[in-house]
Amino acid sequence: MGLKLGIVGATGAVGIEAIKLLEKSRIEISELRLFASSRSVGKKISFLGEELAVQELSSNALRNLDFVFFSAGSSISAIFAPKAKENGAVVIDNSSFFRMKPEVPLVVPEVNGEDLKNHQGIIANPNCTTALLSVALWPIHKIATVERVIVSTYQAVSGAGAKALLELDTQVRHYVQGKPIVPEVFPEQIAFNVFSHNSPIAENGYNGEENKVIQELKKIFHCPGLNVCATCIRVPVFRAHCESVVVETARKITAEETRRILASSPGVEVIDDPQNGLFPTPIKASGKKEVLVGRIREDLSHPRSISFFLSGDQLLKGAAWNALQILQCLIN
Amino acid sequence: MGLKLGIVGATGAVGIEAIKLLEKSRIEISELRLFASSRSVGKKISFLGEELAVQELSSNALRNLDFVFFSAGSSISAIFAPKAKENGAVVIDNSSFFRMKPEVPLVVPEVNGEDLKNHQGIIANPNCTTALLSVALWPIHKIATVERVIVSTYQAVSGAGAKALLELDTQVRHYVQGKPIVPEVFPEQIAFNVFSHNSPIAENGYNGEENKVIQELKKIFHCPGLNVCATCIRVPVFRAHCESVVVETARKITAEETRRILASSPGVEVIDDPQNGLFPTPIKASGKKEVLVGRIREDLSHPRSISFFLSGDQLLKGAAWNALQILQCLIN
Repeated sequence: MGLKLGIVGATGAVGIEAIKLLEKSRIEISELRLFASSRSVGKKISFLGEELAVQELSSNALRNLDFVFFSAGSSISAIFAPKAKENGAVVIDNSSFFRMKPEVPLVVPEVNGEDLKNHQGIIANPNCTTALLSVALWPIHKIATVERVIVSTYQAVSGAGAKALLELDTQVRHYVQGKPIVPEVFPEQIAFNVFSHNSPIAENGYNGEENKVIQELKKIFHCPGLNVCATCIRVPVFRAHCESVVVETARKITAEETRRILASSPGVEVIDDPQNGLFPTPIKASGKKEVLVGRIREDLSHPRSISFFLSGDQLLKGAAWNALQILQCLIN
Repeated sequence: MGLKLGIVGATGAVGIEAIKLLEKSRIEISELRLFASSRSVGKKISFLGEELAVQELSSNALRNLDFVFFSAGSSISAIFAPKAKENGAVVIDNSSFFRMKPEVPLVVPEVNGEDLKNHQGIIANPNCTTALLSVALWPIHKIATVERVIVSTYQAVSGAGAKALLELDTQVRHYVQGKPIVPEVFPEQIAFNVFSHNSPIAENGYNGEENKVIQELKKIFHCPGLNVCATCIRVPVFRAHCESVVVETARKITAEETRRILASSPGVEVIDDPQNGLFPTPIKASGKKEVLVGRIREDLSHPRSISFFLSGDQLLKGAAWNALQILQCLIN
């Protein structure tokens, strides 16, 4: 008897990845119900040789499901995740809506999978940048206690959805064809440019993405006093985020010790080969479930600090893969 | 009676900018002698309506000049800058060869223009990333004493010369035409990718570019004990570098105070408008002499720390414009 699973946002960038991962997983599924916005209703999506029609989302349509994965934005999750829960399903929500609610576990299985035990029907999947960062930081935290994190990001456009992917493609084509480049999805030209993440700036001077990283990391690590500074920047990359990270620890650790610990940590792949100039890049990380970590070195500006550079597929470990890992933990 | 000026590396990205800046400057020039590698000899370059032929570089050809600007790499500077000096010229060298020599001033006029008084015939122009950073940091240092700097860069390809510019263009055309992308100048694909700066990794785990930033900043600021951590990353941008900066200071300063000080500092333009989402970008900085600074905010992870994001044209303030400013200081 397999699982009855719903995916809300099935035609989005993360939804598509989730369906692909499910096809390859050993999770037995007896029913897969796909939901998307009204303009995608009726669209056919192939799953294990079957053609499944995308349905319209409603409270009724969420009945008789074991799990529902939401990745259709906060406003959809706010309304329909509680409905799915009332109908008896367990919700894994990729939006930011429930992440900071005290009763909702915010889970990266490699870090705080234990928190799943206390769920009350809704589990939150973290922001993509936070998920990638937490996987690389946790092994360091366990051996040396992280006291402060400073992170600057290099974020791919696919984090902003399928329209943003198309915008980079279109702008580059216009460049080659000598046509003017007119931003439509992003507020600034994205081709051959970088800009501050396009989420609104809050009272504290940090943008929405930065505040998510700062707050979510504290919650996932169970460290409300963790000191975090984040600068989130978009770069003209299709897929996979990068992060330049400086970590101050309570106990001094060497680069060598950090490299050794990370190399044996779940969800991490160390690519750190100065001889051959091989380090993490978004191209290497695209399509991978692991977070790639390299440029591991002692921070010359502080006696107990390590610096590194990571790349990770924000659609996989940053979203769909993390959600599937949560599902696997819940089943086992 | 105008100056007799030589430019070594006249056909390179920085040389071309230097010639354009000289044309627009008020510096009176009686002779401009242009040098480049043998394959460019005889090439004509227009200067104030005249067509000047590019000459082959030799010790003899460097005679009877007042100033020579070198931007043709360290090995050329190592041999010919001392020759130009012996011949009586003052050298402004854009290579890294002389930068850390104690007898050679390393000058950013807004910061340590005073150091020019002690020159002995050779003056070094800093690394582009360092020059941009120093302009934004110095006003903060003057009011609050900078103790530690953590910088992550987003560096344009033009810092690696004309071939690198062409490589990004070619790779993007191949993408649009559906052809395979094969890296030739850079070790990794640059289109739709970011990677650790392609300078060799030194013993201390930092690459050449990072060590330049770390060492040069200390020298320019006359602060051998300044704590600096740098991570240098290439991004698929044609022109202008960006830097995500965290600065710890001895005295606590607010974001508002920092913004006010930077807004009235020479060589800095503050673009920091959260309401309209306007911040520095490489496209805004391209062709500008000023370093654009924005996202100025208090670092939530430290009691005396400020974070900001800058963009600056590395061919101008990072190279040719800084050299021309040095020349103007020397003439006055």
